[in-house]
Amino acid sequence: MTRDACVLLDRADPLGAMRDQFVLDGGVIYLDGNSLGALSHPAIKQVRALLEAEWGRGLIRSWNEAGWIDAPRRIGDKLAALLGADPGEVIVADNTSVNLFKLLAGAARLRPERPVILTEVETFPTDLYLAAGVVDLLGGGREVRAVPRTELRESLDGRVALLMLTHVDYCSGYMHDMRALTEAAHHAGALVLWDLSHSAGAVPLNLNACAVDLAVGCGYKYLNGGPGAPAYLYVSRHLQPEMRSPLWGWMGHASPFDFSPTYAPGDGIARYLCGTPPMLAMAALEAALDLWLSVDLETAWRKSRALSELLIRLVDERGADLGFSVASPRDPWVRGSHVAIRHPEGYRIMRALIARGVIGDFRPPDLMRLALTPLYTRFVDVWDAVDRLVEVVAGRAYEAPPYAQRLAVT
Amino acid sequence: MTRDACVLLDRADPLGAMRDQFVLDGGVIYLDGNSLGALSHPAIKQVRALLEAEWGRGLIRSWNEAGWIDAPRRIGDKLAALLGADPGEVIVADNTSVNLFKLLAGAARLRPERPVILTEVETFPTDLYLAAGVVDLLGGGREVRAVPRTELRESLDGRVALLMLTHVDYCSGYMHDMRALTEAAHHAGALVLWDLSHSAGAVPLNLNACAVDLAVGCGYKYLNGGPGAPAYLYVSRHLQPEMRSPLWGWMGHASPFDFSPTYAPGDGIARYLCGTPPMLAMAALEAALDLWLSVDLETAWRKSRALSELLIRLVDERGADLGFSVASPRDPWVRGSHVAIRHPEGYRIMRALIARGVIGDFRPPDLMRLALTPLYTRFVDVWDAVDRLVEVVAGRAYEAPPYAQRLAVT
Repeated sequence: MTRDACVLLDRADPLGAMRDQFVLDGGVIYLDGNSLGALSHPAIKQVRALLEAEWGRGLIRSWNEAGWIDAPRRIGDKLAALLGADPGEVIVADNTSVNLFKLLAGAARLRPERPVILTEVETFPTDLYLAAGVVDLLGGGREVRAVPRTELRESLDGRVALLMLTHVDYCSGYMHDMRALTEAAHHAGALVLWDLSHSAGAVPLNLNACAVDLAVGCGYKYLNGGPGAPAYLYVSRHLQPEMRSPLWGWMGHASPFDFSPTYAPGDGIARYLCGTPPMLAMAALEAALDLWLSVDLETAWRKSRALSELLIRLVDERGADLGFSVASPRDPWVRGSHVAIRHPEGYRIMRALIARGVIGDFRPPDLMRLALTPLYTRFVDVWDAVDRLVEVVAGRAYEAPPYAQRLAVT
Repeated sequence: MTRDACVLLDRADPLGAMRDQFVLDGGVIYLDGNSLGALSHPAIKQVRALLEAEWGRGLIRSWNEAGWIDAPRRIGDKLAALLGADPGEVIVADNTSVNLFKLLAGAARLRPERPVILTEVETFPTDLYLAAGVVDLLGGGREVRAVPRTELRESLDGRVALLMLTHVDYCSGYMHDMRALTEAAHHAGALVLWDLSHSAGAVPLNLNACAVDLAVGCGYKYLNGGPGAPAYLYVSRHLQPEMRSPLWGWMGHASPFDFSPTYAPGDGIARYLCGTPPMLAMAALEAALDLWLSVDLETAWRKSRALSELLIRLVDERGADLGFSVASPRDPWVRGSHVAIRHPEGYRIMRALIARGVIGDFRPPDLMRLALTPLYTRFVDVWDAVDRLVEVVAGRAYEAPPYAQRLAVT
């Protein structure tokens, strides 16, 4: 493999032109789209329109005239197409944590005789926190059981109300078999909740085909919705009538503008709304999703796999002697769209890389994460990133303080 | 009173120049700042900077380098100055409903032996919904007791864990005596939670001087933070160590970036954060608050009272024969910064007024609400609004369908 070969791959890339839709400073190689997706030109346009025309001139009238009031449902329907869900099964609201709380509490109450929320120890920490908070709040002997990944299936017993899993591991990039685990959970009489934060916009999803009950995910990673973009939740149509959100906010009321003193949950997915949606953030997310809907998803997933295969190959070829090892699964069918590279000096190396314009991130204790985002990452970016990685480590050019003295890095 | 006299009042207004900071179409008289505050030029500038420079070029680095990670606390501290609270007692997060949930559940669990959340029947409906949801979720014989306003004090018995009130009534504009009711609640051993959504940026507030325990409020009304702006919550410093949020999200963790599997609540007000904040919306709110901090608050409250006194006087003088009556308290010291005007055809009149460029809003069954926002409403706006109101009704120029066929109006 050579840099010239990467240039040729980019020329042949059917998604090559999509990169022009994004604002990417020429000097930066951005491989952190799994933490914060890049800004697109359509997002700039839509946020400015919302700001200046809709808020500035339309003022309060824009709730109706600019369709703000319908945005959570409308954007949810757009997202449904990416998730393999039906219109009316997805809604955009709040952040991932709040949405998790809604579905965890709702699901726990649907199976009151089953006290366990089952998950794996490797799951995203905030998912563990939220589940622990729900169990603490609801009491009644409920518990969160976090087991090693290999013990998930055997742990699915008659006490499990809900299996909660992050579909793609935020550290290693390991991707669960959604269909098989969902089936196993159903076989044990449990519901399933998938956190898709590292999946949507990164790997193929088909929630309906996998008979998934519940899902949440965030808008600011591969979806490119902007920093702290609104998150989403999915409730399978068959569960919608019986399940409720514990957050009885007015936007989820059957008739919010009647100002009735009594709460009545809205029909279908609308009941999972709570307060007023942040429209500037919604506008950026909607523009980003429109861009996603303009590409062929199969082509995007194919490119995502080709990029990560290239990265792994280059790290193997050039990095093994320098102490690097690939911490992600080598089988692309059980891997998300980021690759984790292990190195004892991972934190300081990543600081040095960022200083040299290659932006990835670090997860303790020793993982560097590099995300391959099919809409704007080029094959030549992967080559150049590995080139600089090798340069930094071969020259021991990492002068950052050790991890214990770090700043917050998201 | 004449239009010319209003022009003179505007010329003498020490806040007159502040209006130039706002984007207000010359053809519109905007009296709906209690639903959605107007857009300011600093907000445009700050949102664009966040969008294009911080997200677009800074990308993930902006969480540290542009101070995103500190925004909830930093903006909360700015807001504290408007609320009469100390730095570290206010945080900006989520929406009002979610924040209410956090504090309602937290407070209910601080007083487990007291099963009642006391409020008034006239309170903002979503506050009733959220409280009913908390009671439904926590069980244990808890209940929401909503009594008429006149029975609040006598209802403060030993079973009340929390008195929850909207400080300024969203319909009539009636303003509670925060100090006296807080004292009465404390005397009965209860905590107090004030919803300041219709107060902050509208009336003087001094949470510390009133010994208030808890408060929430929204950012998009008088504060001018933008549609669906992030909301805020206040927890008195003396309650911070003992109370917890039920939403154990990672942003409220003591060390969110350690990715520990175990939740540990952050110190002080930080524990009330949950998920990742929507930065575009945060930027607009921060710019709007900076504008608030640039004015003398006493001058603003004085102007607010003068504007509403003028509106009431003009409605009395010119509207009484046309079936109008003022539904707000006449004493400015028990009134917020909007005036409710009652008319049996209120809904259709408001539609006609909006069509003529006077934007207020309507609350069922028969209240027109007109907000007097001290930063951008002129005395001559009040004159012109009443002029058109009289014109519409005298000419019976309201052709909108009746209320039952309305669109959603926020």
